[in-house]
Amino acid sequence: MVKQKKTMSSEDCLGWAARDASGHLSPYKFNRRAVGDDDVHVKITHCGVCYADIVWTRNKFGDSKYPVVPGHEIAGVVSKVGSNVKRFNVGDHVGVGTYVNSCRDCEYCDDRLEHQCSKGGVFTFNGVDSDGTITKGGYSNFIVVHERYCFKIPKSYPLASAAPLLCAGITVYSPMIRHKMNEQPGKSLGVIGLGGLGHMAVKFGKAFGLNVTVFSTSISKKDEALNLLGADNFVISSDEDQMKRLTKTLDFIIDTASGDHPFDPYLALLKTLGILVVVGAANEIKFSPVSLFFGLKTISGSSVGGTKDIQEMIDLCAEKNIYPKIEVIPIEYANEAIERVIKNDVKYRFVIDIENSLK
Amino acid sequence: MVKQKKTMSSEDCLGWAARDASGHLSPYKFNRRAVGDDDVHVKITHCGVCYADIVWTRNKFGDSKYPVVPGHEIAGVVSKVGSNVKRFNVGDHVGVGTYVNSCRDCEYCDDRLEHQCSKGGVFTFNGVDSDGTITKGGYSNFIVVHERYCFKIPKSYPLASAAPLLCAGITVYSPMIRHKMNEQPGKSLGVIGLGGLGHMAVKFGKAFGLNVTVFSTSISKKDEALNLLGADNFVISSDEDQMKRLTKTLDFIIDTASGDHPFDPYLALLKTLGILVVVGAANEIKFSPVSLFFGLKTISGSSVGGTKDIQEMIDLCAEKNIYPKIEVIPIEYANEAIERVIKNDVKYRFVIDIENSLK
Repeated sequence: MVKQKKTMSSEDCLGWAARDASGHLSPYKFNRRAVGDDDVHVKITHCGVCYADIVWTRNKFGDSKYPVVPGHEIAGVVSKVGSNVKRFNVGDHVGVGTYVNSCRDCEYCDDRLEHQCSKGGVFTFNGVDSDGTITKGGYSNFIVVHERYCFKIPKSYPLASAAPLLCAGITVYSPMIRHKMNEQPGKSLGVIGLGGLGHMAVKFGKAFGLNVTVFSTSISKKDEALNLLGADNFVISSDEDQMKRLTKTLDFIIDTASGDHPFDPYLALLKTLGILVVVGAANEIKFSPVSLFFGLKTISGSSVGGTKDIQEMIDLCAEKNIYPKIEVIPIEYANEAIERVIKNDVKYRFVIDIENSLK
Repeated sequence: MVKQKKTMSSEDCLGWAARDASGHLSPYKFNRRAVGDDDVHVKITHCGVCYADIVWTRNKFGDSKYPVVPGHEIAGVVSKVGSNVKRFNVGDHVGVGTYVNSCRDCEYCDDRLEHQCSKGGVFTFNGVDSDGTITKGGYSNFIVVHERYCFKIPKSYPLASAAPLLCAGITVYSPMIRHKMNEQPGKSLGVIGLGGLGHMAVKFGKAFGLNVTVFSTSISKKDEALNLLGADNFVISSDEDQMKRLTKTLDFIIDTASGDHPFDPYLALLKTLGILVVVGAANEIKFSPVSLFFGLKTISGSSVGGTKDIQEMIDLCAEKNIYPKIEVIPIEYANEAIERVIKNDVKYRFVIDIENSLK
């Protein structure tokens, strides 16, 4: 028993944390909880760098609980499993996303929309877990997580590529499924913004057989949008003539732009019954009711996705060879990477090589 | 031939029109087109007074084509039919709504969403018809209209009550059907604003078995909302405590409020996957993206409805004894009625008794 307890107990975990609102990250040792009966112990190999990492390391929402170990695009290898764990074995490749707990008992958890849990899910970092501890994310060498919030990654799929799927990927995939974009090949999709989220929306759009138009403020993204990501059309959003030509031509728009921008010009591009999904972090959404009335249009919000969608997305990416375009970096580069994310200077996602650099 | 031509030719029509942006209405004689092969000639008995009448008699959108004969909530009796008309016979009770023409050839017309016609439908008044003439509305003693834009009213259903269904009724009914509120008894509906549109939303909501909460700025409407209209709950929207108690309790909200008002407090009342439908004429819709993200919420716009929905709504109202609450007035009271509509001083719709007062 003692031996077992020792085997299953928490260990020293090495991570990188921000200590204050400067957000500066540096090495930090802490304990994870013991591996419970339903838990999986994951040796982290990779972690994506998401804008959320900046939000909480720099206390943008005023609720940061320092030290903050960020990271919620986690990929790795199962190194231990609790006695009740059924879905995973040691050696499996797995991912962990933006949440690590929920009540598992409400209507939303029952529908596998755990991110909408009535009692409030627990974020992967800076969250308060059911035992009162503050969760710590994937800029660390292992994590302990209930198996429900863990996803199988096929061994054919590179772990580095899998990491960004767990937030950037699911954030666009989930509303695409909810609005049945995967069942309507030939329909037209606009993607506003070509960053971590936007480039995945283009890739999923093409995988679903949609005609994809990218809207960007920067002509520098045109070549990659069309030739690397396979978009059908590229539009500079400030070009009123180009915009006008697309009036009432789009069935769907996914808006991944993080800055404030007008919505009426995009709503005008939707066909009747068209849907604009907002996943980017504008400060405010503002438009004329007329933009919705005439054409019976809809604006819908979305954030990440439930466990069912996440697993299906990973399986689809493996089956259809859909890979995020990533720049792999060592943990020592994390502070610089975050500065570059703020400047939008990344194509399209940084992934930290935890396995080879966090030692 | 001559005789037939004479029988089917246009006649002098007596209406009330505004001549300029003062909007003042007074008697006006004009010609309607001859009854074509597909047309129905309707002797108008009643016409509802809608806010749209104010918009165009007073040139609020800058596109009024004077003289403007307003009125698009029309009920009456068929007095002649063209040779191809199949659905109507002389003596039938019928309604005519907010549009009198469309291309009848596009995907939306094919889906009986004629109000979304790709080529643009023709409004019942102040519209430009396919022959270039300016349409004139229901503040007049007859109208000639293609049978497709004419709806059968069961003889058991009072024509005066039918009139407001053609705009106020369908404006709330159509989005309720689109969002399947009629198939989900027991779900909860919020109705913002208790005027011509709002009171019909309450009545349809109760007919669909929904739990209905009315939001109003005026406590004076409480008794009627609960006891006359049958709402389950009444909330003063400025009462923050009452509002907070309803957080995440509503599946649907129909917003019929015409003035500007905040949207975030209402979005907070929606459950996960909840839908807010805007049908009122705020100048601007403005809210935080966070209000949509957390809870996967949707804001949708709607305006009137297609011919299929209109006929189904009328049939439902007749079957379930759903009647708008109206105040019947003579045409001589039209100018005063319009002033009262502007002041929201009507419970809940004026209906002009054309038959007995316009002579």
